[in-house]
Amino acid sequence: MGPGPVNADPRVLRAMSAQLVGQYDPAMTAYMNETMELYRGVFRTCNEATLLVDGTSRAGIEAALVSLLAPGDRVLVPIFGRFGHLLAEIARRAGAEVHTREIEWGGVFTAAAIERAIVEVRPALLAVVHGDTSTTVAQPLDELGAICERHGVLFYTDVTASLGGNPFEMDAWGLDAATAGLQKCLGGPSGSAPLSLSPRAVERVQARSSVEAGIRSAGDVVREHPIRSNYFDLGMILDYWGEKRLNHHTEATSMLYGARECARLLLEEGMDTAIDRHRLHGAAMLAGVEGLGLEVFGDRAHRMHNVVGVSIPDGVNGDRVRGALLEDFAIEIGTSFGPLHGRIWRIGTMGYNARRDTVLTTLAALEQVLRAEGHRLTAGGGVAAARDVYASEAA
Amino acid sequence: MGPGPVNADPRVLRAMSAQLVGQYDPAMTAYMNETMELYRGVFRTCNEATLLVDGTSRAGIEAALVSLLAPGDRVLVPIFGRFGHLLAEIARRAGAEVHTREIEWGGVFTAAAIERAIVEVRPALLAVVHGDTSTTVAQPLDELGAICERHGVLFYTDVTASLGGNPFEMDAWGLDAATAGLQKCLGGPSGSAPLSLSPRAVERVQARSSVEAGIRSAGDVVREHPIRSNYFDLGMILDYWGEKRLNHHTEATSMLYGARECARLLLEEGMDTAIDRHRLHGAAMLAGVEGLGLEVFGDRAHRMHNVVGVSIPDGVNGDRVRGALLEDFAIEIGTSFGPLHGRIWRIGTMGYNARRDTVLTTLAALEQVLRAEGHRLTAGGGVAAARDVYASEAA
Repeated sequence: MGPGPVNADPRVLRAMSAQLVGQYDPAMTAYMNETMELYRGVFRTCNEATLLVDGTSRAGIEAALVSLLAPGDRVLVPIFGRFGHLLAEIARRAGAEVHTREIEWGGVFTAAAIERAIVEVRPALLAVVHGDTSTTVAQPLDELGAICERHGVLFYTDVTASLGGNPFEMDAWGLDAATAGLQKCLGGPSGSAPLSLSPRAVERVQARSSVEAGIRSAGDVVREHPIRSNYFDLGMILDYWGEKRLNHHTEATSMLYGARECARLLLEEGMDTAIDRHRLHGAAMLAGVEGLGLEVFGDRAHRMHNVVGVSIPDGVNGDRVRGALLEDFAIEIGTSFGPLHGRIWRIGTMGYNARRDTVLTTLAALEQVLRAEGHRLTAGGGVAAARDVYASEAA
Repeated sequence: MGPGPVNADPRVLRAMSAQLVGQYDPAMTAYMNETMELYRGVFRTCNEATLLVDGTSRAGIEAALVSLLAPGDRVLVPIFGRFGHLLAEIARRAGAEVHTREIEWGGVFTAAAIERAIVEVRPALLAVVHGDTSTTVAQPLDELGAICERHGVLFYTDVTASLGGNPFEMDAWGLDAATAGLQKCLGGPSGSAPLSLSPRAVERVQARSSVEAGIRSAGDVVREHPIRSNYFDLGMILDYWGEKRLNHHTEATSMLYGARECARLLLEEGMDTAIDRHRLHGAAMLAGVEGLGLEVFGDRAHRMHNVVGVSIPDGVNGDRVRGALLEDFAIEIGTSFGPLHGRIWRIGTMGYNARRDTVLTTLAALEQVLRAEGHRLTAGGGVAAARDVYASEAA
């Protein structure tokens, strides 16, 4: 019940135990095509260029940034938590000229503040995290696409922590690139990064991509300044996933089986239903921790559905509580990073773990552990408050 | 029965279907430590810095090269097949000054030729592929460590295609860095890259590595010219796998379970026994294709145990043969790349597929398919020749 990774859906784990097929077996290339189509549904996009990067979610981030940003390109990164720092750091290593804006952790930027920064910086790319689990809030993105369009800026977001559990509309919100991971609301293991690029982003990437030495034919264009990474060259990865089927890496077959099953589960449930499920169990958990007399951290208006930040009460040893929860109840919750390390707990309700039984069990266990720590609280207050949420929604 | 990926060992697939545990759960960090120790056994090394990179085998290659080579560093890459070109291309994108030497595909370099090139180039790093599946031969490495030592050159090899099926001695051969993948002789799926660094290589990496912005503490050193990739910064990855346990990526848990099981299987069998198994079934396959009257490609003295190159006979449509094998017998074999595309087939005997039944079935099926294509051959010649190999070894 931490901020992710969390338990995977058993159907995803079963899918991953299927036997491998060859890289160019028609069954395998059909699975690849299916996976592309499934993730179009998950991202809510028509983008042809929708595929998996073989690595954890930050592999997807690095693939997007190193492929979209040439050395010297200006990028604007609004930072409202740890993962904004990560985008900035990855862009810097890609040789981009990185401009950041920072606000205190726990809040989000207004669209006007981001537009002002765009006017000042004139970036080639706006790179912003959607839900930053480090602070448990989500940056509203719905107005940013129009702003980027107006100023001729490419618009990229990382939705690793939010996708599947919070509203996200790649096309309607005007995004050019989005990256994700399986280990949060998608109910899978870390290790595969779904990614989607708009036609405009594909154009930018292809202008920088070459066919790899070793499989190059006469007539293939060779760029003088190639993308700085081979593994993350989205042009090459597109040539592998696309009709050319040019050999690049060997697709991580088991992870693809898992990623495919994650998307199948979500689309079978229905994206809206899945997002609403996360909203409900997130609301129940929030009510529950308040019912225990604990204080919730972060901007309430922009909370992510799938993780709640809880201020660690004075006089309570946060790590000892986490340790007891894990040891006595086999329940993991997290703390956070940087300025919030040791100041908040993060309790997740996401993917396979966004369920009534997990919410109520966690609240019951947390009550017992806090009581044993000598913290005063209302007996049964957490579970009762969560039950109230469920009852009112069922009414 | 292609050059890999091949069928995974069912025990590996079962291991991958185990439920996830949290990233810093003591069970998870214990699995990480176990995996490090297991791969020391597989690489035959005492290197503390032995871990997994979360990506396919070329992710391991890129992590090694981008972490060991600063922009402008000279690297020598002897090329004897497609994957030598890959090393050169990745090093070039990392900003290194890349010097190559090439020989015709099918042969290997003498140690003297490599020493001559080292004297000419004075590289910081020698980067050479061990077994290059594109040509089915393996470069002897046992004398190169001493040469590198003599000239103060770091020594790196990629053993993706050879490890577990051919002799390899990281420490005894004086290697500073080695990278691998699971999808060949290790009997697992692509998607995790075991990697090992000598203390000397670790020193080189650490001199270039910083703690990530977002989790940095006052007093942490920040380098002016960081490693060009965050995802592949082996300094950060070491801080995550090592005692500091600094958060970097979220370890790909299911792939780790798989990688751990691959190593457990190999070490239970015994590395020498596993290598000898590959030698035996490789020899049987070689005898079998010759028994069918087909010609073997490449330098016989330096053949990899786990893949045999077969010259496609004049008048035979190589792709149609591969298609019929797949469609009628569910057996996949490969062709090759570049100058060998359409000129040879590559038949693998590796990992879980290095077995008597797979060898004999493949030879029986190949005979039927070739006969149907109108190619003249000795009926039963393939299976008989392979049987002879097995019989003589059993005697």
